[in-house]
Amino acid sequence: MAAPYTTSLSQAYPLLSGISGPEDLKKLSIPELERVAAECRKRVIELVSMNGGHFGSSLGVVELTVAMHHVYDSPRDRIVWDVGHQAYVHKILTGRMAEMHTNRQYGGLAGFPKRTESPHDAFDTGHASTSISAAAGLAAARDLAGRDEKVIAVIGDGSMTGGMAFEAMNHLGDIKSDVLVVLNDNQMAISPSTGGLKNYLVNIPLNKTYNRLRKFVWDSISLLNNELGDTAKSTVHRIEDGIKAAFTPGAFFEALGFRYFGPIDGHNMEQLVRAMREMRALPHPKLLHVITTKGKGFKPAEDNQSKWHASTGGFDIETGKNLKPSGKPAPPKYQEVFGEALVELALRDSTIAAITAAMPSGTSLDLFQNAIPSRFYDVGIAEQHAVTFAAGLAAGGFKPVFAIYSTFLQRAYDQLIHDVALQNLHVVFAIDRAGLVGEDGPTHHGAFDLSYLHAVPNLVIMAPGDEQELRNMLYTALYEVKGPVAIRYPRGSGTGALLHKEFTSLQVGKGRILREGSSLALLGIGTMTSRAMETAELLASGGLDPMVCDMRFLKPLDEKLLDKVASQCHHIAVLEENSVIGGLGSAVVDYLNRRHPGVRVATFGLPDAFVTHGDMNALYREVGLDAVSLSDRIRQFRDQEA
Amino acid sequence: MAAPYTTSLSQAYPLLSGISGPEDLKKLSIPELERVAAECRKRVIELVSMNGGHFGSSLGVVELTVAMHHVYDSPRDRIVWDVGHQAYVHKILTGRMAEMHTNRQYGGLAGFPKRTESPHDAFDTGHASTSISAAAGLAAARDLAGRDEKVIAVIGDGSMTGGMAFEAMNHLGDIKSDVLVVLNDNQMAISPSTGGLKNYLVNIPLNKTYNRLRKFVWDSISLLNNELGDTAKSTVHRIEDGIKAAFTPGAFFEALGFRYFGPIDGHNMEQLVRAMREMRALPHPKLLHVITTKGKGFKPAEDNQSKWHASTGGFDIETGKNLKPSGKPAPPKYQEVFGEALVELALRDSTIAAITAAMPSGTSLDLFQNAIPSRFYDVGIAEQHAVTFAAGLAAGGFKPVFAIYSTFLQRAYDQLIHDVALQNLHVVFAIDRAGLVGEDGPTHHGAFDLSYLHAVPNLVIMAPGDEQELRNMLYTALYEVKGPVAIRYPRGSGTGALLHKEFTSLQVGKGRILREGSSLALLGIGTMTSRAMETAELLASGGLDPMVCDMRFLKPLDEKLLDKVASQCHHIAVLEENSVIGGLGSAVVDYLNRRHPGVRVATFGLPDAFVTHGDMNALYREVGLDAVSLSDRIRQFRDQEA
Repeated sequence: MAAPYTTSLSQAYPLLSGISGPEDLKKLSIPELERVAAECRKRVIELVSMNGGHFGSSLGVVELTVAMHHVYDSPRDRIVWDVGHQAYVHKILTGRMAEMHTNRQYGGLAGFPKRTESPHDAFDTGHASTSISAAAGLAAARDLAGRDEKVIAVIGDGSMTGGMAFEAMNHLGDIKSDVLVVLNDNQMAISPSTGGLKNYLVNIPLNKTYNRLRKFVWDSISLLNNELGDTAKSTVHRIEDGIKAAFTPGAFFEALGFRYFGPIDGHNMEQLVRAMREMRALPHPKLLHVITTKGKGFKPAEDNQSKWHASTGGFDIETGKNLKPSGKPAPPKYQEVFGEALVELALRDSTIAAITAAMPSGTSLDLFQNAIPSRFYDVGIAEQHAVTFAAGLAAGGFKPVFAIYSTFLQRAYDQLIHDVALQNLHVVFAIDRAGLVGEDGPTHHGAFDLSYLHAVPNLVIMAPGDEQELRNMLYTALYEVKGPVAIRYPRGSGTGALLHKEFTSLQVGKGRILREGSSLALLGIGTMTSRAMETAELLASGGLDPMVCDMRFLKPLDEKLLDKVASQCHHIAVLEENSVIGGLGSAVVDYLNRRHPGVRVATFGLPDAFVTHGDMNALYREVGLDAVSLSDRIRQFRDQEA
Repeated sequence: MAAPYTTSLSQAYPLLSGISGPEDLKKLSIPELERVAAECRKRVIELVSMNGGHFGSSLGVVELTVAMHHVYDSPRDRIVWDVGHQAYVHKILTGRMAEMHTNRQYGGLAGFPKRTESPHDAFDTGHASTSISAAAGLAAARDLAGRDEKVIAVIGDGSMTGGMAFEAMNHLGDIKSDVLVVLNDNQMAISPSTGGLKNYLVNIPLNKTYNRLRKFVWDSISLLNNELGDTAKSTVHRIEDGIKAAFTPGAFFEALGFRYFGPIDGHNMEQLVRAMREMRALPHPKLLHVITTKGKGFKPAEDNQSKWHASTGGFDIETGKNLKPSGKPAPPKYQEVFGEALVELALRDSTIAAITAAMPSGTSLDLFQNAIPSRFYDVGIAEQHAVTFAAGLAAGGFKPVFAIYSTFLQRAYDQLIHDVALQNLHVVFAIDRAGLVGEDGPTHHGAFDLSYLHAVPNLVIMAPGDEQELRNMLYTALYEVKGPVAIRYPRGSGTGALLHKEFTSLQVGKGRILREGSSLALLGIGTMTSRAMETAELLASGGLDPMVCDMRFLKPLDEKLLDKVASQCHHIAVLEENSVIGGLGSAVVDYLNRRHPGVRVATFGLPDAFVTHGDMNALYREVGLDAVSLSDRIRQFRDQEA
């Protein structure tokens, strides 16, 4: 990929443009490293202002990243970035400076670390809380092979609330393998982080008397020590250990078998380099607690960290003001319509509660948080707990609505089956970001939910064709269903459908006919309902007269509607923005095979492969789910099987 | 259900037979409660000796359960039993004494708490580490509704290693809701528990100088206190807090926002009752650390806790000796064949590593643990971590084999997709207990793995028809596949197939014909391969001549074999011990629909419902997967669609 800014890059970034890899950082002095960091920060702001991307987290770890690559020897030493959206500086310093302008674009660099992109990316990340487990595995492999590279996991305080981070530390504390966990503590995940542990971490650096007290204690003990006999002395040494533990702010981590160091200032290069050197010399599991400021160096992001977690780009580098032409306003987003509808309903019904796993703004549950804080729960990055917590609320007589991204619900699959569906508890799963999500790519596409939910007994599964239907589906989920129920809807703007003030119940398990037609039928669900209509228009202009149905429900499947369609049409195409395996297509094929064996059916969904990142139109074309591709493919299906 | 022992019960259990519910415990004195406990213990031993069941864990919590029901008011107060296999005493004390002899039997009581069985069962359990989340939900519901019942979670130290327990405590520490967590610490899960936290817990009660030291410190501080001015005094008070923290063994839990109490002796009724009364009065999250002995009161179980975690019954109550007639020895179990094969292969190949999530004996990985301890990892009850740890090992150049029960792999579904399949890492999933498991019932049946794995890109999925094929499939997974691969096999004895010393590679994605035939074909996978042969014999005796195939692979599907079958047979029946939705049946229907639309196909699997507990034959009959039912259903399919 060409780097269009090459000349200007070397002028604007005199030091950075000379750095083709971490080896070039080795010889630099602290002041030089600081200048490299400043250039990195400038570059990140520039890149995100142009193309959008994750933001605050990369700005927070600029000095940390520079110091780490100065002290450690990547790619020999293995650095695992938790979540990975903070790895822009890492990418800049590991030979990808010239390509960074393609970040997150179709065909360009990924927004997250990727082993296929660079040997410096030790492990692919995207979801939270995986880094310590991956690092433990890399370290165990090193130990077994008798190698001696270092392994580092860089994890935020938000990710630290995920249970698997705890599981991994507990295991590492047991096998005592040499891993450095850098706890990048900005007291934020995407939104301010929650939980008992957060309060604990907050109190560590705020304890102003900490150093004074420690000195006093040591002095007192020395004093006592001089006046005591041997037995008493040994007792005092034990007390000493106890007091050390009391004044080691990391007792929590030490309990898991880690040595704790810090907290240190994550923007002080000298402190960072010194600490990293110390860490490098220690052969066991240790945690370095680093305090950083999310969005550091970009005033608007420092001031509003949630808002500037990620940006779509197009802002002024000094002020953060939007520079994009403010064209026609887009239709409201699905998540906004969801968040507003839920607040409307919950204001009338005091048994409704809302749950998020650290995504209040992404899911729009912040609207609920502001309107009805007493019934709002942000459980942290803790999807497993969120689902069973919801099950507990339901068993206690409430109607919990858990809003979660499709890809993250994979984290709580067992809890959904074992704690909710098995007890037939009335928990509403509002599955956001279902289908493709665009620039975040394969770690974040919601490609599998219809497949993995389909076999779950007792579960009702639906997907709205537009944002108005989302309102009614939420209403239906709360008042027409008595057991577990899932509504999946996509990222971003709706279709611009007229929003009715009143809520209307849908009949559970009933679809509808959107366009009458003959011989050929298109069955859509969710986003693919309007796409089916577009496709039908293209097919109609080519002389066909397709029927179009909005199936609305995957489960229960509308068998009567399928009977009707099968009686009118000999060719049926099923469209869904979900893996082509195991979702609506499968369900329809299964049913038609049983009841209408003569009818020809073809399924169109996401391929049995991980879909790359990029803008949605490019991705739809790649997977053949844009209207033009679909009309071609469906015409082909009809012709071949005629 | 009739209680056949009623008369003898009241003689053998004079106190217990008078207890029809927890209210009858309220008025009893400590010595009386102790006698109730002794009778409970006797009854549990008797029951398990007759019918089998979980064992050690219930014996360990006898006093705890009696004390809890004495102090708390179930069912108004809500008690959640983590895992739930330790709830036998709870069941005995809550009106189910007379039915306990039906425990785990088809149509009888469940082996785990069940809301539909009794109002005293506050939440259904079965999988580990869910209790604190459920309790948090029940407590939040109480708080929202303005009620004041108490909520208690009883969790073992093994379950405490599961990440969601940590997630739940972190959340409770934040919302500060009134929940009592009873940490039932026997330093065991099913096998000795692992992890840094375990060492931490072990050190608490073993610290013999603990009390002496504490006294010394308090004395010293009082002494200093008398000699100091006001400023110094306030400083000393701060030190006092620090020292308290040092000598509070529960600093780990306190960091999460819990108050920690204990450790206390879990077999001392007086201590337990006093502690419970104190706990009941406190309005915030607190943890009571109770030390118990798994198998307490039954010598053989105390001496070998892993072995006596559960029993199939039929042993002498005094000695633990097997009283069952030692008939024809059963064929080796799938898990044994797996464990032995893996050791054989790993002795020759130093890149093979084995991972279990606290199930070394259940999976037979204890064979690997004994033979090659350096490459064996027990990560604790931490399935999420286990999978990403395996991914790290694979990224570091090793070939990890993770042996896990099908139902527990649901816990690591996201890690399988996001950390293994997306990076196309060579991790072998040895999926044990796939299909029905019998007496453990719906929480433990492996009913969904083929469905939830089917849509995962890059994954190879296979199931052996017998234990000899399991050996070859393991070999194939290690040497013929380069990416993620799953082998699912059932609980218990194999078919008695001859075991070859040599390993043979299978061709990936190729099935085989077991019986030539015409017009009708039965396609089986896994356990349903031999069942298909049985069924074919029944059908043959009725005049049909069915072809039988062992599909071996769900993914990649053997399309050439299907082409051949479709060319010879007009009726195809697909048999699998997995949900009828989304597994092999779906895959075959999908393919035949595309390529061989004229062929009639019917799918036979587990129903779209949770299957109850009981012995395997009863369950197979219930779901229509025994050979007789299958032959009837398949004949019907053929006749109807002829």
